[in-house]
Amino acid sequence: MSNLSVGKLSAPRLQPNDHERLHGLGGALVWFTGLSGAGKSTIANLVDRRLHEGGRHTVHLDGDVVRTGLCADLGFSPGDRKENVRRIGEVGRLFAQTGMLALVAVIAPYEADRAAARARMREGRFVEVFVDAPLSVCEGRDPKGLYARARAGQLRDFTGIDAPYEPPRSPEVHLDSSGGTSAEALADRVITYLRDRGFA
Amino acid sequence: MSNLSVGKLSAPRLQPNDHERLHGLGGALVWFTGLSGAGKSTIANLVDRRLHEGGRHTVHLDGDVVRTGLCADLGFSPGDRKENVRRIGEVGRLFAQTGMLALVAVIAPYEADRAAARARMREGRFVEVFVDAPLSVCEGRDPKGLYARARAGQLRDFTGIDAPYEPPRSPEVHLDSSGGTSAEALADRVITYLRDRGFA
Repeated sequence: MSNLSVGKLSAPRLQPNDHERLHGLGGALVWFTGLSGAGKSTIANLVDRRLHEGGRHTVHLDGDVVRTGLCADLGFSPGDRKENVRRIGEVGRLFAQTGMLALVAVIAPYEADRAAARARMREGRFVEVFVDAPLSVCEGRDPKGLYARARAGQLRDFTGIDAPYEPPRSPEVHLDSSGGTSAEALADRVITYLRDRGFA
Repeated sequence: MSNLSVGKLSAPRLQPNDHERLHGLGGALVWFTGLSGAGKSTIANLVDRRLHEGGRHTVHLDGDVVRTGLCADLGFSPGDRKENVRRIGEVGRLFAQTGMLALVAVIAPYEADRAAARARMREGRFVEVFVDAPLSVCEGRDPKGLYARARAGQLRDFTGIDAPYEPPRSPEVHLDSSGGTSAEALADRVITYLRDRGFA
């Protein structure tokens, strides 16, 4: 039969180790979780820019961006949030497997959904960053006007208002983003954590 | 109010150009389409390995792999295939936007679904590679025994047997993988195409 001849019949697929050798660094998935307005995207963006300037290959997966593409078919019910977190986790895993640093800034309000994303990663490769500010502070900031709309009943299933947020119990990094520390200083803490573990 | 202070308030997010500057090459999504057994994964794997050895950052998204993760919830009905291709297209787009070369080896039997994936990419960044071998040849190879199972009625909606395959009308690269040319030589053709356009 006319097989497609291949010189090295058993040429294996590239593995995460192969990609990491090329980068000289380990891949990881860094998940910034917290309420809307807590500063997840702001801090992730600063981490992203600083590491990129240092030559690190990164990707910043923002909830708002992903919901216009990969997860455009999903809403905000518990089931849809679970699926949203699952897909983003799988994408972050694919990026991490190629040796990249995937920075995900997505609320991911349910502990079980974050745990499921963690369980798909190799040991130590899931870095949970809790961007922690009280609801009153986040609602006071309301950078996108979403809390006001939620309070007015124009948005349903809004985390912190009429949908729950389950805070991480033992995040790898816990940031107090209520306003006493600058976003740059908080980003520094994440970068230090990542450098100490060979991810940046 | 206690805002999260940021020195450069308007620090923009990294753009594809920023990532491509770091790579020194443009990102692209290369889609290997064709029947099961035509050689899509074999050729994509050879392209992947060769470019990786030359220092290019790549990702190889194989249908079988993606279906155990991101698309584990999907079957093989036309609707599920459409969604499978859509998600993989979005993931490939995310990789390409970070300056990487995303190699997708997925049947994607419907012209409209491939066109939709192409439409999401920047002009020239979607490279359709038609891995073309007749059904009789692919069925004769049957590397995974899938055609035999489909003929026996144990698999439904199998492309080429009881589900259609719509061949590309004007693929960027058209490879005759019916057996007269080695997989390495076919991979070379893809690599030449990519190098000529600054993607590798």
